[in-house]
Amino acid sequence: MAFSKRVAIVMGSKSDFDIIEKAVSVLDSFGAEHEIHILSAHRTPDEVAEFAKDAVGNNFGVIIAAAGKSAALPGAIAAYTTLPVIGLPIKSSFLDGLDSLLSMTQMPAGIPVATVGTNAAENAALLAVQIIAVADAKARVALEKYKVSMRKKVLSDNESIK
Amino acid sequence: MAFSKRVAIVMGSKSDFDIIEKAVSVLDSFGAEHEIHILSAHRTPDEVAEFAKDAVGNNFGVIIAAAGKSAALPGAIAAYTTLPVIGLPIKSSFLDGLDSLLSMTQMPAGIPVATVGTNAAENAALLAVQIIAVADAKARVALEKYKVSMRKKVLSDNESIK
Amino acid sequence: MAFSKRVAIVMGSKSDFDIIEKAVSVLDSFGAEHEIHILSAHRTPDEVAEFAKDAVGNNFGVIIAAAGKSAALPGAIAAYTTLPVIGLPIKSSFLDGLDSLLSMTQMPAGIPVATVGTNAAENAALLAVQIIAVADAKARVALEKYKVSMRKKVLSDNESIK
Amino acid sequence: MAFSKRVAIVMGSKSDFDIIEKAVSVLDSFGAEHEIHILSAHRTPDEVAEFAKDAVGNNFGVIIAAAGKSAALPGAIAAYTTLPVIGLPIKSSFLDGLDSLLSMTQMPAGIPVATVGTNAAENAALLAVQIIAVADAKARVALEKYKVSMRKKVLSDNESIK
Amino acid sequence: MAFSKRVAIVMGSKSDFDIIEKAVSVLDSFGAEHEIHILSAHRTPDEVAEFAKDAVGNNFGVIIAAAGKSAALPGAIAAYTTLPVIGLPIKSSFLDGLDSLLSMTQMPAGIPVATVGTNAAENAALLAVQIIAVADAKARVALEKYKVSMRKKVLSDNESIK
Amino acid sequence: MAFSKRVAIVMGSKSDFDIIEKAVSVLDSFGAEHEIHILSAHRTPDEVAEFAKDAVGNNFGVIIAAAGKSAALPGAIAAYTTLPVIGLPIKSSFLDGLDSLLSMTQMPAGIPVATVGTNAAENAALLAVQIIAVADAKARVALEKYKVSMRKKVLSDNESIK
Amino acid sequence: MAFSKRVAIVMGSKSDFDIIEKAVSVLDSFGAEHEIHILSAHRTPDEVAEFAKDAVGNNFGVIIAAAGKSAALPGAIAAYTTLPVIGLPIKSSFLDGLDSLLSMTQMPAGIPVATVGTNAAENAALLAVQIIAVADAKARVALEKYKVSMRKKVLSDNESIK
Amino acid sequence: MAFSKRVAIVMGSKSDFDIIEKAVSVLDSFGAEHEIHILSAHRTPDEVAEFAKDAVGNNFGVIIAAAGKSAALPGAIAAYTTLPVIGLPIKSSFLDGLDSLLSMTQMPAGIPVATVGTNAAENAALLAVQIIAVADAKARVALEKYKVSMRKKVLSDNESIK
Repeated sequence: MAFSKRVAIVMGSKSDFDIIEKAVSVLDSFGAEHEIHILSAHRTPDEVAEFAKDAVGNNFGVIIAAAGKSAALPGAIAAYTTLPVIGLPIKSSFLDGLDSLLSMTQMPAGIPVATVGTNAAENAALLAVQIIAVADAKARVALEKYKVSMRKKVLSDNESIK
Repeated sequence: MAFSKRVAIVMGSKSDFDIIEKAVSVLDSFGAEHEIHILSAHRTPDEVAEFAKDAVGNNFGVIIAAAGKSAALPGAIAAYTTLPVIGLPIKSSFLDGLDSLLSMTQMPAGIPVATVGTNAAENAALLAVQIIAVADAKARVALEKYKVSMRKKVLSDNESIK
Repeated sequence: MAFSKRVAIVMGSKSDFDIIEKAVSVLDSFGAEHEIHILSAHRTPDEVAEFAKDAVGNNFGVIIAAAGKSAALPGAIAAYTTLPVIGLPIKSSFLDGLDSLLSMTQMPAGIPVATVGTNAAENAALLAVQIIAVADAKARVALEKYKVSMRKKVLSDNESIK
Repeated sequence: MAFSKRVAIVMGSKSDFDIIEKAVSVLDSFGAEHEIHILSAHRTPDEVAEFAKDAVGNNFGVIIAAAGKSAALPGAIAAYTTLPVIGLPIKSSFLDGLDSLLSMTQMPAGIPVATVGTNAAENAALLAVQIIAVADAKARVALEKYKVSMRKKVLSDNESIK
Repeated sequence: MAFSKRVAIVMGSKSDFDIIEKAVSVLDSFGAEHEIHILSAHRTPDEVAEFAKDAVGNNFGVIIAAAGKSAALPGAIAAYTTLPVIGLPIKSSFLDGLDSLLSMTQMPAGIPVATVGTNAAENAALLAVQIIAVADAKARVALEKYKVSMRKKVLSDNESIK
Repeated sequence: MAFSKRVAIVMGSKSDFDIIEKAVSVLDSFGAEHEIHILSAHRTPDEVAEFAKDAVGNNFGVIIAAAGKSAALPGAIAAYTTLPVIGLPIKSSFLDGLDSLLSMTQMPAGIPVATVGTNAAENAALLAVQIIAVADAKARVALEKYKVSMRKKVLSDNESIK
Repeated sequence: MAFSKRVAIVMGSKSDFDIIEKAVSVLDSFGAEHEIHILSAHRTPDEVAEFAKDAVGNNFGVIIAAAGKSAALPGAIAAYTTLPVIGLPIKSSFLDGLDSLLSMTQMPAGIPVATVGTNAAENAALLAVQIIAVADAKARVALEKYKVSMRKKVLSDNESIK
Repeated sequence: MAFSKRVAIVMGSKSDFDIIEKAVSVLDSFGAEHEIHILSAHRTPDEVAEFAKDAVGNNFGVIIAAAGKSAALPGAIAAYTTLPVIGLPIKSSFLDGLDSLLSMTQMPAGIPVATVGTNAAENAALLAVQIIAVADAKARVALEKYKVSMRKKVLSDNESIK
């Protein structure tokens, strides 16, 4: 296993996969082991609960939960685990996903969801690696390399525009 | 029992009771039997599921679920019952409860929540009685009386302003 | 007649039919008898009133009213009946239908409208069936089957993504 | 009678009178004859229709309709008259009356409502006088005097701040 | 001349003409005489002032001012005339014209703008005719015919859907 | 005169002075000469035009224009001068001044308004000094001192919290 | 030291301390070691950079960054560290902190900020402990106890309302 | 060199260049010397700081900073310079750039950003020339010519529509 902990990705609907793919691609580029699930807070609540209860035992270190509209999925997972849950709000066809964003950030006290931007699958994946890296030097090094490469890309763009 | 079916009122937090009280008062004025619960989608998910699964068997005809912010409660109940769930969005301290309103209305296909206005506890209660009245002539008559009394009140206000 | 009560669908404009069609399709799949009307709160107010006054007598159990923009239709119907009125906000070309959504949810006390999401025609239809099912065991059974089928669909999607 | 036509003021609820009072005061200062009604689009729809149908015959030239939240009143009046209807959106406790504002401006084609700002009772009254003044020289002169007095007030404020 | 007063249409930019055309078409169908101007509150402020000062003398009864974004045009006109000014907010590429809508409705006390919906050119034209009709029986009759034809259209649509 | 150019402050209404006072206080602390005017784009449009046309000749280098709601003042000034106009949106009682903010930022191409935050009078004043400092070394030095003092204040707060 | 890693709390302004105090109190109740800083992205950018660069070396596992309005602080920290940065949007006086919330969530790809709700200091603290708990069994146990106590509190409230 | 001071244009990402091009084109038409940089507040913070510190010495008179979403770039530059910074909010895919707009306008006291409209690259460029023109008669003359040409364009459009 690449890192000490694995990343779980859960999406509320198969149609969210186009967005999720970018997260998968980032995790792959880091060599972060991950597992993808389609589970619905409203259609398969028992399976969500079961997944969440078993997450620590299944060596997940962090869970990315992607959902749109009322976006209850990350909260439904967080209700059953003490792992950090990253909320990835999927852009709905309503106000560019303001609904998803508010449903994820405005959680009640006691049940945090670590929310990233709407459709920001890359950032969800990077945050997952950052969380694992807290106690995983290998992941830390990978993140530092990534940071350097981002910087180089901008500097190279800057050169090319002169 | 006044009507053929009972009304359940579930709120996500004790602090919502000030709003809920107006719903209780309307139900009482109609003689509608009701039961109040404090249950949290995120803090007591198992109890929410259990309550929802038993709701038909407990002779409830409709469930009023009040919640604020990410307001997952009505959806969490609707996941486990086929009874109509009335969503009563509680005004949060964020944009006058736009978060609660969107979390309740923007449900995924398959899981409707019958949403009323923010803090509109009276309307939640009236809608509950309307739903019971679909097959309860006694409730129908009471609603018709209520409609007449509302009309009289406005006409009397109109007289007094002349 | 399939169920004990019929469902009325009223839309403010012929152009809303594309959305309404999804509701019709869901009602048909449940075998719920329904009747469609095009009536405008502002252009045919007398016909709206007449329709609403006769709705109980015509054996309707619930009315779905679809409208966009200032979306007065469900309220105009609710003014003349004690049946539950489901408001289906049609997405306008303004802020993805926030106008329709607010016009329907922010009803004055005494006149509830059971609002579903913008363009959420499926949920409007399901809510209608749920309301009829309060006193109709046949409808209850159909809803339970529907719930099972939704769950199976997600679990099957979950299998296929592994 | 001061002007050739009278102004009708209709409000949806007695509680709107605090705002309406400012309109009354402006109309009085212009010597514009007016009549105040409390009528609800949802609680007294028949009386609204009757009032609107009789408005031309009762020598009204313009109708100010004040309402909050879903604010159906001006549209309900406009459905039954060809007089210009001025919509005065009352600030609700939701997003400072954005709901009222949108319900009034987003009318369907064919049924205009001349909307002023939220709680802008003075402007509603001035617009009413402007509309009457289209064919009333006396009202025109009064408006021109008013314009001069506004200008003088600002210039005097400007002097005092130097 | 068809009616006792003429209608002026002013737009802030040539690009608004696509929307304005619908207003022109409605005015033409009523036989309302009108005149179109392109004038900018910010680029040709002197011409705006001159136009507005002369409007009463030029036998205009009402002015339709169309503008987008900060939409200062109707206010800039209203600053120099006591005629009613109808504000027609043009949809900008920002929040579907919420900017235009607010700039027109939120006028300071003393300077009303009679605002219709975003891009609602038909309603702007109809409101103009309604205002002229206050003292023009010919226009009143035309509006009543229009109302009947709208009603017939909806009833015919209703028939066709059965 | 302290700096090579003077700062003009124009407000739309005397009631805005409470906010403006903070700008005056900052300008005074920099020794920036300034002049205050109360002028309304809608009530005294000629005086606004006159002020703006004379601004360069009166040795102003920049104009701060404060206004609320439809907030046409900075644009009305910018229509008549090529000086930079700083727009200071005053918080209205509607959505915390979103109306003022959009009216100022969403200017048509060709007429920029340099907008600061709602009620951000200090920043309006600082921006004015920054603009003068482009060609005024004395103002530059004063700004650099101010920057140092801000930094020291934060570092001192940081010390005190340890 | 209680847990394997420490928590840093950085706020943009001393005035944010009232909110931060709730986070401190939660961390204290968990026995999580923490350090508080007042640092401004705009007034002390060098100190922010220095703090962020040293954060891993100073045995911090996670950084809570609280800021209001344009809320650049968490991003400014994230620019210089690979530690997870929790963004705590402070409610500004503008739209209840929508500005802060968007500034934190809408980060560019590559620089995630784990955003919690506006003023949700408790959830920021809990998320920090959850992140540390990924590799700290002691923290995990403490979180599980906390979860149980939340559940008990709701069940007890539910009992008391019967 | 055309004017006494140069204009710097900094964008957060190469993808913003389509918008920036319009600003370049306006500056070119004025003969204003300019320099373009791609620099990211979050990916190349040190280069941003270095650029900003050197800006006065490099004879820049004003800096245009374009950025989208959380849009920290203008503030990050303003943290290190006393030159006026013009914020050009790039439309994100979220609420038409409301996020960018708020991030730029809602700066903390002490660090103003002169914000123009979303994607309003022309106005950003014109504001830059206006700022340089405060002490540059050549730029003033060019701006006055530009103002005349805008006026002529509108008057010519007005003629052509008659």
